[in-house]
Amino acid sequence: MANASVQRMSQLMAKTLRDDPADAEVLSHKLLVRAGYVRRTAAGVWSWLPLGKKVLANVERIVREEMDAIGAQEVLLPALLPREPYDATGRWDEYGQELFRLKDRKGGDYLLGPTHEEIFTLLVKDQCTSYKDLPVILYQIQSKFRDEARPRAGILRGREFLMKDSYSFDLADEGLAESYALHRQAYQRIFERLGLDYRICAATAGAMGGSKSEEFLAPAEAGEDTFADCPNCDFAANTEAITYELKPVDASGMPAAEDIPTPDTPTIETLAASLGVPASATLKNLLVKVDGEIVAVGVPGDREVDLGKVEAHFAPAVVEMVTEADFATRPDLVRGYVGPQGLGEKVKYVADPRVAPGTAWITGANKEHTHAKNVVAGRDFEVDEYVDVVVVQEGDPCPKCGTGLKLDRAIEIGHIFQLGRKYADALKLDVLGQNGKPVRVTMGSYGIGVSRAVAALAEQTADDKGLCWSKEVAPADVHVVAAGKALQTELALEVSDKLAAAGVRVLVDDRAGVSPGVKFTDAELIGVPQILVAGRRAGEGVVELKDRRTGEREELPVDEAIARLTATS
Amino acid sequence: MANASVQRMSQLMAKTLRDDPADAEVLSHKLLVRAGYVRRTAAGVWSWLPLGKKVLANVERIVREEMDAIGAQEVLLPALLPREPYDATGRWDEYGQELFRLKDRKGGDYLLGPTHEEIFTLLVKDQCTSYKDLPVILYQIQSKFRDEARPRAGILRGREFLMKDSYSFDLADEGLAESYALHRQAYQRIFERLGLDYRICAATAGAMGGSKSEEFLAPAEAGEDTFADCPNCDFAANTEAITYELKPVDASGMPAAEDIPTPDTPTIETLAASLGVPASATLKNLLVKVDGEIVAVGVPGDREVDLGKVEAHFAPAVVEMVTEADFATRPDLVRGYVGPQGLGEKVKYVADPRVAPGTAWITGANKEHTHAKNVVAGRDFEVDEYVDVVVVQEGDPCPKCGTGLKLDRAIEIGHIFQLGRKYADALKLDVLGQNGKPVRVTMGSYGIGVSRAVAALAEQTADDKGLCWSKEVAPADVHVVAAGKALQTELALEVSDKLAAAGVRVLVDDRAGVSPGVKFTDAELIGVPQILVAGRRAGEGVVELKDRRTGEREELPVDEAIARLTATS
Repeated sequence: MANASVQRMSQLMAKTLRDDPADAEVLSHKLLVRAGYVRRTAAGVWSWLPLGKKVLANVERIVREEMDAIGAQEVLLPALLPREPYDATGRWDEYGQELFRLKDRKGGDYLLGPTHEEIFTLLVKDQCTSYKDLPVILYQIQSKFRDEARPRAGILRGREFLMKDSYSFDLADEGLAESYALHRQAYQRIFERLGLDYRICAATAGAMGGSKSEEFLAPAEAGEDTFADCPNCDFAANTEAITYELKPVDASGMPAAEDIPTPDTPTIETLAASLGVPASATLKNLLVKVDGEIVAVGVPGDREVDLGKVEAHFAPAVVEMVTEADFATRPDLVRGYVGPQGLGEKVKYVADPRVAPGTAWITGANKEHTHAKNVVAGRDFEVDEYVDVVVVQEGDPCPKCGTGLKLDRAIEIGHIFQLGRKYADALKLDVLGQNGKPVRVTMGSYGIGVSRAVAALAEQTADDKGLCWSKEVAPADVHVVAAGKALQTELALEVSDKLAAAGVRVLVDDRAGVSPGVKFTDAELIGVPQILVAGRRAGEGVVELKDRRTGEREELPVDEAIARLTATS
Repeated sequence: MANASVQRMSQLMAKTLRDDPADAEVLSHKLLVRAGYVRRTAAGVWSWLPLGKKVLANVERIVREEMDAIGAQEVLLPALLPREPYDATGRWDEYGQELFRLKDRKGGDYLLGPTHEEIFTLLVKDQCTSYKDLPVILYQIQSKFRDEARPRAGILRGREFLMKDSYSFDLADEGLAESYALHRQAYQRIFERLGLDYRICAATAGAMGGSKSEEFLAPAEAGEDTFADCPNCDFAANTEAITYELKPVDASGMPAAEDIPTPDTPTIETLAASLGVPASATLKNLLVKVDGEIVAVGVPGDREVDLGKVEAHFAPAVVEMVTEADFATRPDLVRGYVGPQGLGEKVKYVADPRVAPGTAWITGANKEHTHAKNVVAGRDFEVDEYVDVVVVQEGDPCPKCGTGLKLDRAIEIGHIFQLGRKYADALKLDVLGQNGKPVRVTMGSYGIGVSRAVAALAEQTADDKGLCWSKEVAPADVHVVAAGKALQTELALEVSDKLAAAGVRVLVDDRAGVSPGVKFTDAELIGVPQILVAGRRAGEGVVELKDRRTGEREELPVDEAIARLTATS
């Protein structure tokens, strides 16, 4: 094995801190700052110090190797991008405030790439002209820019971050499915090699567009995503992406709807209390404006509407809450007493699948202080469109097997999309088919948050002493501690050189004037997998070898320690 | 040696072009586009295709290895930077239109890093508090952004480009000199390994500030810099940086100055012709405005003023040419007949060292249609300040030995600066010294244009057939060409696999339906150092091995060809 390097702590720029930074909320933020891996440069904008850069480079290497292994070709596109292609797909506007926009000295409009679908589409349009040129998978590892509203959680959600993005181009749907499957497998290998605990979850495509999409979620308290996990079957999904089948029920024996006076019951709580029924027996109708048009959204009275889902459904239309002013212009909509009966003539009515045909409800009667009971979906009112809009709760039935779901927080570390022809249509990406006629190309897009993966790893593997890296990712293989005076330092440096000569990457704490206690604490905080201590018994040529994760320690002769460490490298 | 990869041309995204792109002016631009290494994404903004990315990665690797070898520590800072530190050093304004500025969603001012002195200074201020923490050298390889007025020459001068920038921090001037020397040596090793022909030239510090600075210039027609080279001694300098010693002459025997009527001689040419003297006998006085104040600049009549040098001298003040309107407000300045006599009371007078004390001149008499002769510097007029402002010409004397200089065009591939305390002063970077008192830190900054080095290499090594890479930089070690039908393709792929198994990086042209002629032309255009052809004699197990640079070719048995190629890898 080739020579590896010895990094001396006495020369390393990595100031460790005893206390958590004041602005840090999540574990990875606290520990990566305290252990001297990263420093904040501006809100959501981070600098990677030498130790952090080493970990980042290791993650990059693993990603690169596995992408190369599926035949993906590495390229490097600019971060500074012209507006025009993003206008063509509508994303210049759709991205909203999240997009960093700027002008050049001539007044031309540019953006900082948040993701590169448009530019890759144009590149392939330039490079690939025939069916023979496809399929092709291209990837890059590059800084991306998104102007997050509230950059938080350290490098988990920054405004500039390192991403591996790749794009597949295929002639037909089967080809896309294959490129997608290749990525899915590569991602599994990558996250396994990184040592991340993760789940593959059904996801929504969001602003990206397209049909099928899955997320790779790393369970962690600090995560911003919530995913549902079935304890009984293999179902797992981002709660944003859970959809239920519509299950009509038989309402043939249900009595006719009838009005009931319900004075002073403007809320579901007051209504349910006054009638002595559970809130789940009532139908709540929320009014929103979709691009200015009023739309009613019906859900059972005990459930919350997930506005994110409503927005996702109507995107790119803008969804707003109705205001006093809106009610003033619509006297036909009785505030607090809106019901879906006859509503179809007035506004569009969308409802959660729980409001299936045949279900009966207590709901507003469209008159002041009046509700109606035995109001049956499909008999007394029509639903224009069924959309999953409720906030998923712990214990909701698994859509696959019906078992109560478990909810967990997670970090999104990867996302794969079957985009289909959205971008190819907007930018007219065709190649000549075998029959000489143009074929519209179908695309996939695939991302891994490289810098975020470092934070996710920190979150999942850290313990109360500090960071705790896996061997492939760690900034060094062995942390050698000179715990004592000249004798110990000499031995530590000698051992370090021997290890490096055998290909082991060494970090050696040779700092003068720093106590053994501080060095031990720093070694555990920094989290290199093996710690070798030249201490009390250095004179006899005996060192201590400690496993950072398990804490197991053993005293053994220097040569044996070296042999053991080189054997595993 | 570890397994290397086989890249099949049938799957590679690298469309070669027969014709030069219409907008290409320089060789590297033409060839890198034609050979499928890069594509233009916007003005001055480039995408690196798979072959280009491989070359770029090779250059990065060499830079990284040599920076690591001098003990520099790799970090990664953001490209999106806050305004405040650049305000503190004045560069937010001084950078002018070259700086990409943008606002975030909250209206905060940001810039895209053109170079990172400020941010590194702040980082070290945070990380290093004691003299024990220094010296430190930090580097990164990262995309930089500069809004060039006229992005041209392909990737030689882009608006987004890849740069290695490093920064040294020392306690004392001797330390800075040592860090500077380490960089100088590392740069020599880097450019030698890259196979670049280069010169180290004295340079001006420009907007960067600081004292000593040298440029690494790669001679090339396409270069934007001009450097002077002494054919006799070791002197070499960017023409912008050449300064001459002031050499006073004895003017004791010179007659008194006297006016001479010179009607209709508004230019040096008309004046010299009418008097029958060479233009070099006359003194030309150019008026400029420096931050609004008029300044006169005196140079011999046969020499041009280098406005860049005037601007550099007065920077950050803004230099403009005087206008009709300015003359209208200053009747004491007689247009076309300005002379330095008595000028000192009216405007500041700076002159080239050629206008040394004791030299005599024919110059304006500050009266319409009148000049004066025997006007002696230091006797008849005073020079407020001597500044080297003339455009250096081929044949000008070497400032060191007096031999006539040779001028050449070159590409700036590296630049090293002794910054001193400019940034440390502005951002108050002190560490505690050994005596317990704060010590102001002294800095150096050092850059290599990584993407530009690729273009410079292309410029210097290409021939009339195409690109021609050195082994360390080439996208592959061997280009295997299947020149024929199934038999040849089979042999080509077999050879490729064997080579790869022995650690040789292979590009194999296995394209079906592409003629051998086109494949040969592409192989020479792409410029991999060795070309192995499975052709006419494939059936006998005989291949042709060709050296891309020399054109030498040899037929030999497959196994011998493989043995020879693996021996050199």
